[in-house]
Amino acid sequence: MPILNPDIETMDRKELLDLQMERLQIVVNQAYSNVDFYRRKFDEAGVSPDDIKTLDDLKRIPFTTRKDLIDNYPYGMFAVPLRDVVRLQFPLGMYGNPIVIGYTGEDLRIWRELVARVMVGVGITEHDIIQVAFNYGLFLGAVRFNQSAELIGAAVVPTSIASAEVQVRIMQDFRSTVLTSAPSFAVHIMETMQRKKIDTGTLSLRIGLFGAESWPEEVRKCLEDNLNIQAYEIFGVTELIEPGVAGECMEKNGLHVFEDHFLPEIIEPVTGRVLGEGREGELVLTTLTTQAYPLLRYRTSDVTSLHADPCSCGRTLVRMEKVLKRTDQMVCVRGINVFPEKIEEVLKSAEGLGPGYSLSTRGKMGMNDHLTIRVKASSEILQTPEERKGAMKERLQMAFRRALGIGVEVEFVKESKS
Amino acid sequence: MPILNPDIETMDRKELLDLQMERLQIVVNQAYSNVDFYRRKFDEAGVSPDDIKTLDDLKRIPFTTRKDLIDNYPYGMFAVPLRDVVRLQFPLGMYGNPIVIGYTGEDLRIWRELVARVMVGVGITEHDIIQVAFNYGLFLGAVRFNQSAELIGAAVVPTSIASAEVQVRIMQDFRSTVLTSAPSFAVHIMETMQRKKIDTGTLSLRIGLFGAESWPEEVRKCLEDNLNIQAYEIFGVTELIEPGVAGECMEKNGLHVFEDHFLPEIIEPVTGRVLGEGREGELVLTTLTTQAYPLLRYRTSDVTSLHADPCSCGRTLVRMEKVLKRTDQMVCVRGINVFPEKIEEVLKSAEGLGPGYSLSTRGKMGMNDHLTIRVKASSEILQTPEERKGAMKERLQMAFRRALGIGVEVEFVKESKS
Repeated sequence: MPILNPDIETMDRKELLDLQMERLQIVVNQAYSNVDFYRRKFDEAGVSPDDIKTLDDLKRIPFTTRKDLIDNYPYGMFAVPLRDVVRLQFPLGMYGNPIVIGYTGEDLRIWRELVARVMVGVGITEHDIIQVAFNYGLFLGAVRFNQSAELIGAAVVPTSIASAEVQVRIMQDFRSTVLTSAPSFAVHIMETMQRKKIDTGTLSLRIGLFGAESWPEEVRKCLEDNLNIQAYEIFGVTELIEPGVAGECMEKNGLHVFEDHFLPEIIEPVTGRVLGEGREGELVLTTLTTQAYPLLRYRTSDVTSLHADPCSCGRTLVRMEKVLKRTDQMVCVRGINVFPEKIEEVLKSAEGLGPGYSLSTRGKMGMNDHLTIRVKASSEILQTPEERKGAMKERLQMAFRRALGIGVEVEFVKESKS
Repeated sequence: MPILNPDIETMDRKELLDLQMERLQIVVNQAYSNVDFYRRKFDEAGVSPDDIKTLDDLKRIPFTTRKDLIDNYPYGMFAVPLRDVVRLQFPLGMYGNPIVIGYTGEDLRIWRELVARVMVGVGITEHDIIQVAFNYGLFLGAVRFNQSAELIGAAVVPTSIASAEVQVRIMQDFRSTVLTSAPSFAVHIMETMQRKKIDTGTLSLRIGLFGAESWPEEVRKCLEDNLNIQAYEIFGVTELIEPGVAGECMEKNGLHVFEDHFLPEIIEPVTGRVLGEGREGELVLTTLTTQAYPLLRYRTSDVTSLHADPCSCGRTLVRMEKVLKRTDQMVCVRGINVFPEKIEEVLKSAEGLGPGYSLSTRGKMGMNDHLTIRVKASSEILQTPEERKGAMKERLQMAFRRALGIGVEVEFVKESKS
């Protein structure tokens, strides 16, 4: 089993916990000294950095939420001066309530290594040609695949926004051996091949590395069988690094969390109580080495569970179950995160429509290909002649497309009696 | 005047020519030994690599054209084995007749330095925050700004496809000091600010670094006056590196060509005769250090002239005039290259339409914001009721949008009598 950084990835767990503790104390002290927000939070909770003496003391630290990041926009969460920051990233889909994440050169180097760990772990080598079919314009983390591939000497083809047909042609012409994309787009590529009656035996493809949206096991099986590949997941969290927080190994037995850089906990979302190994709950992450944008006990809203029993791959890093649920109302459609705030913002400027709405998604095998937004409409609007109503719907669809970055369907529904 | 690599950028021209000669012999030998295409071309022309003894012998080498790159797709022009290639890039807009450009790790390192040379040359330092408003999904070279900024320690905000309104808000919130984008988009951002009555005095912006399309001096003046910045140009050639072949210094007195890596000539496009200093003609470039994808006497189709007299900035590298014309039919609209082949391909599958067509562009200050494609239509189509004709136009517009990556207007015109 190939491992990029065996010293860390197969480290004795006792030693790993010591390393985590050491790093936790440093990051807590830095956050307290350099970020007003954390100092205030600690002081209010009556906790001092010196109180954090064991990993068990972690639970004394207050949670950090997405709202905190929004409230401290733009630079309130930064722990280093701006001149030490080399990358400022704001998740495009979130712009309704903007956040901005900063990275130092060292933060980027670590990120690069973590994605490379996943690549090596699933068997990618310097001989591979990796076709990256993520939209580089919208998903800024996509470029990390280029950097990490360079690190291990593999070639990258950034196919970006090319259509499924062009992706297939490039896969044939360039003899790509690895496809990385949102799993729903991989299914679309697969169907395009089937329609064109392309024999996958003529392709060089052997590995799929998928992420940025949830995909049930059924999708893995379908992609593996029909594309004749081994399919793996890479996981990230937009507010930390995405992709690169965790990744599957060849055992496909959960995603190894890179615990030397991120300390994971699982909590009961309502009470905030920490849950034990194997229990399902909300994933909470604490950055252990991040310089620019340290996050202490950040609530990711992702629902999963952790398993620390040994993995046959030799890695000692805990394994995280695939994330298939969220604690918030965010939905992910074709790899793009759609936040309720963005929808509300669009509806604000639409007279006679909203604020009430409901979302409905559909797609193959439990993935979300289509999003329908059912908007509560006034009776005046519902009684408008069909043609004018159609034009109104189209305008609203355009507004949603601009705001969310994806096409959606709009339906007008009656406001329920109060 | 800040200079990143003074040893090279201010090198005595005599020494520079010696360096070029030395590198030319190496690249010619490598191309001849490793690329069948070049060996055939040399043999047919009765030239041997040993015949290239002085820079003047360069003109004995046959030209390389875009058609050659297309004919040798995908890997026929590569001078190194695929395992040494870490990046494979195909210009998305060109996919009708695809080409693919390969880069080794060393090629990417050089590219990174060249863009950093331009950044340093226009006064960007580690204290700057560079807002990169290129579409990372479509213009894959945009990511080079991230890498080069990292090299000099400046921070990058990849705003990518965010709308002009969001760009303005980020510019304010993040206190961006540098904007890099297509000049037409910069004008759009400027107009958005004017509409929102934003006082540029409240911004931190001080430098604009623009490229990927031609922009007359009038546009520079307009952007400088209204955004309260110094505006500079960075130039690239898709088939070599884009951006990074040349860049302006603070003198705004032409673009210094990075002659240690690219050997420029100006030729008369019809006869191929080499023209002297100051004469306007087609730019021909020979790569001097490129490992993966060496190009010998590549005809860029860009029209310009070269000036070797000293520049007050201290650089000895020749200066190239702004490119405002092409020798081919390619037009550039909002930073996206539109090739005639792509238009022809779309028309092929449209019954009763084409193959004849003409292009018309319009926009402010000599830049192309809008493209109208006037398609020759059969008399049956011209006599179709307006409503159905409208639907046909819309379908064709959609097909063009998919193929070209930009929205266009379609008009149906009468076929002229033959």
